[in-house]
Amino acid sequence: MRIYTFDSNELMSQFMTDIIVSTMLQDKRVNLSLTGGSSPKRVYELLLERMKNLKNLNHVHYFTFDETPIRNQAHQVVGYDNYVPFERDFLIPAQIDPKNVTFMRDENYENFPQLIEEAGGLDLMMIGIGKDGHFCANMPECTVYDQEVYCVELSNEFPWNEPYQATLKGNYSDKMYTLGLPALIKTKRVVLIVNGKHKAQAVKRMIEGPLDKDFPASYLRLLPNFVILLDNEAASELATK
Amino acid sequence: MRIYTFDSNELMSQFMTDIIVSTMLQDKRVNLSLTGGSSPKRVYELLLERMKNLKNLNHVHYFTFDETPIRNQAHQVVGYDNYVPFERDFLIPAQIDPKNVTFMRDENYENFPQLIEEAGGLDLMMIGIGKDGHFCANMPECTVYDQEVYCVELSNEFPWNEPYQATLKGNYSDKMYTLGLPALIKTKRVVLIVNGKHKAQAVKRMIEGPLDKDFPASYLRLLPNFVILLDNEAASELATK
Amino acid sequence: MRIYTFDSNELMSQFMTDIIVSTMLQDKRVNLSLTGGSSPKRVYELLLERMKNLKNLNHVHYFTFDETPIRNQAHQVVGYDNYVPFERDFLIPAQIDPKNVTFMRDENYENFPQLIEEAGGLDLMMIGIGKDGHFCANMPECTVYDQEVYCVELSNEFPWNEPYQATLKGNYSDKMYTLGLPALIKTKRVVLIVNGKHKAQAVKRMIEGPLDKDFPASYLRLLPNFVILLDNEAASELATK
Amino acid sequence: MRIYTFDSNELMSQFMTDIIVSTMLQDKRVNLSLTGGSSPKRVYELLLERMKNLKNLNHVHYFTFDETPIRNQAHQVVGYDNYVPFERDFLIPAQIDPKNVTFMRDENYENFPQLIEEAGGLDLMMIGIGKDGHFCANMPECTVYDQEVYCVELSNEFPWNEPYQATLKGNYSDKMYTLGLPALIKTKRVVLIVNGKHKAQAVKRMIEGPLDKDFPASYLRLLPNFVILLDNEAASELATK
Repeated sequence: MRIYTFDSNELMSQFMTDIIVSTMLQDKRVNLSLTGGSSPKRVYELLLERMKNLKNLNHVHYFTFDETPIRNQAHQVVGYDNYVPFERDFLIPAQIDPKNVTFMRDENYENFPQLIEEAGGLDLMMIGIGKDGHFCANMPECTVYDQEVYCVELSNEFPWNEPYQATLKGNYSDKMYTLGLPALIKTKRVVLIVNGKHKAQAVKRMIEGPLDKDFPASYLRLLPNFVILLDNEAASELATK
Repeated sequence: MRIYTFDSNELMSQFMTDIIVSTMLQDKRVNLSLTGGSSPKRVYELLLERMKNLKNLNHVHYFTFDETPIRNQAHQVVGYDNYVPFERDFLIPAQIDPKNVTFMRDENYENFPQLIEEAGGLDLMMIGIGKDGHFCANMPECTVYDQEVYCVELSNEFPWNEPYQATLKGNYSDKMYTLGLPALIKTKRVVLIVNGKHKAQAVKRMIEGPLDKDFPASYLRLLPNFVILLDNEAASELATK
Repeated sequence: MRIYTFDSNELMSQFMTDIIVSTMLQDKRVNLSLTGGSSPKRVYELLLERMKNLKNLNHVHYFTFDETPIRNQAHQVVGYDNYVPFERDFLIPAQIDPKNVTFMRDENYENFPQLIEEAGGLDLMMIGIGKDGHFCANMPECTVYDQEVYCVELSNEFPWNEPYQATLKGNYSDKMYTLGLPALIKTKRVVLIVNGKHKAQAVKRMIEGPLDKDFPASYLRLLPNFVILLDNEAASELATK
Repeated sequence: MRIYTFDSNELMSQFMTDIIVSTMLQDKRVNLSLTGGSSPKRVYELLLERMKNLKNLNHVHYFTFDETPIRNQAHQVVGYDNYVPFERDFLIPAQIDPKNVTFMRDENYENFPQLIEEAGGLDLMMIGIGKDGHFCANMPECTVYDQEVYCVELSNEFPWNEPYQATLKGNYSDKMYTLGLPALIKTKRVVLIVNGKHKAQAVKRMIEGPLDKDFPASYLRLLPNFVILLDNEAASELATK
């Protein structure tokens, strides 16, 4: 684990973009897994700007790493909580060929680690963390630490479930699935980005706290080639800055 | 994790030897970390036999991965619990140049992960496990799961300490140090060998039990390129053989 | 380039087998490209014997590296000069699932480097050399040194063509295709095996001669992780043995 | 080989900087070899600016790749044609610890490939090319294509020698040494940058011409993970832009 702190989210996002762009510019197949969510918003803007200058990226492949299918009252899948914004914010504006995208869904999630293995393994993951210590969809209440992929049945035993379902406007989710810790450990390089004061306590606990099954991000310390990029605010609670 | 079961310890040892020999025969620096102990006894015999046919192994380097210095009543170090038999059983008969060996001891253990990093990382570790689930010197009572290396002060709070000290013939040990889980995760390839009926329950628990801090070997399931070689007896309690 | 010389073809073949077996025993996709021909005959015997002890090799994939399709007088393909013996001597007795085999033929040869790239690259090639300095189907008269794959139209301008066509019993070949030097350079590890007095001059020229476009094997010296295994007879003309 | 063309030297230099920065930001030892010369002038400016934001780069090591020692009339070394400007333009302003720098000179050049091997291999080289097709100090008149390192005695048989000596202000050089093609082939990733109209013919010949011993850069096509970054002017003579 190496930690780099930057004066602003803008700077942090530039360095993250550098890493993605650099990973793309190779003469071999490249497999990327890039988080959605709010943390990398500026990263995607910068990345799209850079990619305008790049042709010949057919060797770059994208894998999503978690998903929550959304169903209507007739139980049909009508949306994907992670894929849809990733498609909108990155895949479509970057004009990525759909055959270069493997997205996790009901039909393939159990097989996802094998799909990644068959493709030669992931070269780079960009991830974020939540205030509650989740990474990907490894949530404090339900993380399985020794599975490369697993599915969680959603229920109100999880405190976040009811508020989450309320956001779905009459639709619902009954399960989510995610890559787990061993899949991240198999990834050649994982970069975590965190910005903002509201994440400072989570960053501190991830880096300085004990390995804690109730705080999944603490296990990221085990990753073999792991770099953390923080803005000043996210780093503000660390003992050593 | 992939598991291979063999009809005999002899066969298992041959495959383990293949892996070591193959790792040596490369045109690049090679860094090995090979366990001592009783499990690999036959491996070393086979390996020494093979190495008689090999010149030009100056590019192969050896790192030990744990140590318990032994002191006399004047507190001077008079032996090393792991290095001495490794030297006797392998380094001397294989005529390894001492400058190709980095052995963990008081003076360098804190710096050992950096020594490994500076050398370009470990290419291969061969490890065993104990009936109590220990690997390297990560013991159930005192494993630190998130440190690449750490030291444990020996005391009788550990059930194994008093019997251990009794074997030292008037000498004593006051501490041991070991590479920890994150160092194994950083190793390009880790191979575990286990033979014998007396290890069958430990093998079962390691592979089929939960991730359990009281059974350190269960955490080996997290390793990114991990192969387990078993003889039939060691595999005899597994649900799927 | 590192060179290892053994007292016998038997010993050399054992070490070559070690390398193949060891490459298989990993927890990741493995892509192999193994020569046919007479040199590795004993290797395949040993390999088949070892593989009887191994289940769980579904992650191992095979790529051929050259081909000469054989046609009848109606111009239909009726055989493959390299694939057919490789299938007979290895793929069938080893019970390799055909979906794990990518074999070079008219329909895919131009695309073969991309098929390899998509699969994550070759982990290991085992090759031989000819007395004339050819490797794969890179022949002295027609090697293209800067193409990952290329096709050669067979004609009697090549001294070996007429004798070759005579072996085809009324059938004929009009072309061959082969991976070229840059594809071998991209392979993580290439191991060359040579045995027998009749190859000693070729071995000497490959290792000690100049880079020579009329002796393609001399260019193998450029490979990034290249090991040569020789029996004593093949090594007998070398200045330093 | 993959080729990327950019609208300006500024843009090209930014992408090159991305690749260097990204290679630095890893949790492992990193070995870089970065060209001096005029091509990367803007790269170093951008890189120094970025590195101001980065602490914790002690794991990054630098290797030079060629040298021409300069001697006074008493035959004492009084300067280094490549190291001195590299030190001035990068090592000093970036405050690189001298123990992280291995610079090629009389005392170590023969051993340089072994120094690189001992360090775990080069992760990244940034190189340029000359109008005459040279890369590193592999000049058309004297390149040795199969040596990882070699020395050339300077003499007026080389057309560039007399003008070069004239620039040394009463001093002289009698030899130069350089990493050769096989050392670049062993490097995990090589990136070539070229800008300017005056290099357009050289770029065309390197990419589209034959493998030609009188034009060393044509051999760069053999590199296993090779990316070429061009500005529009340098790319202007290419058949496919």
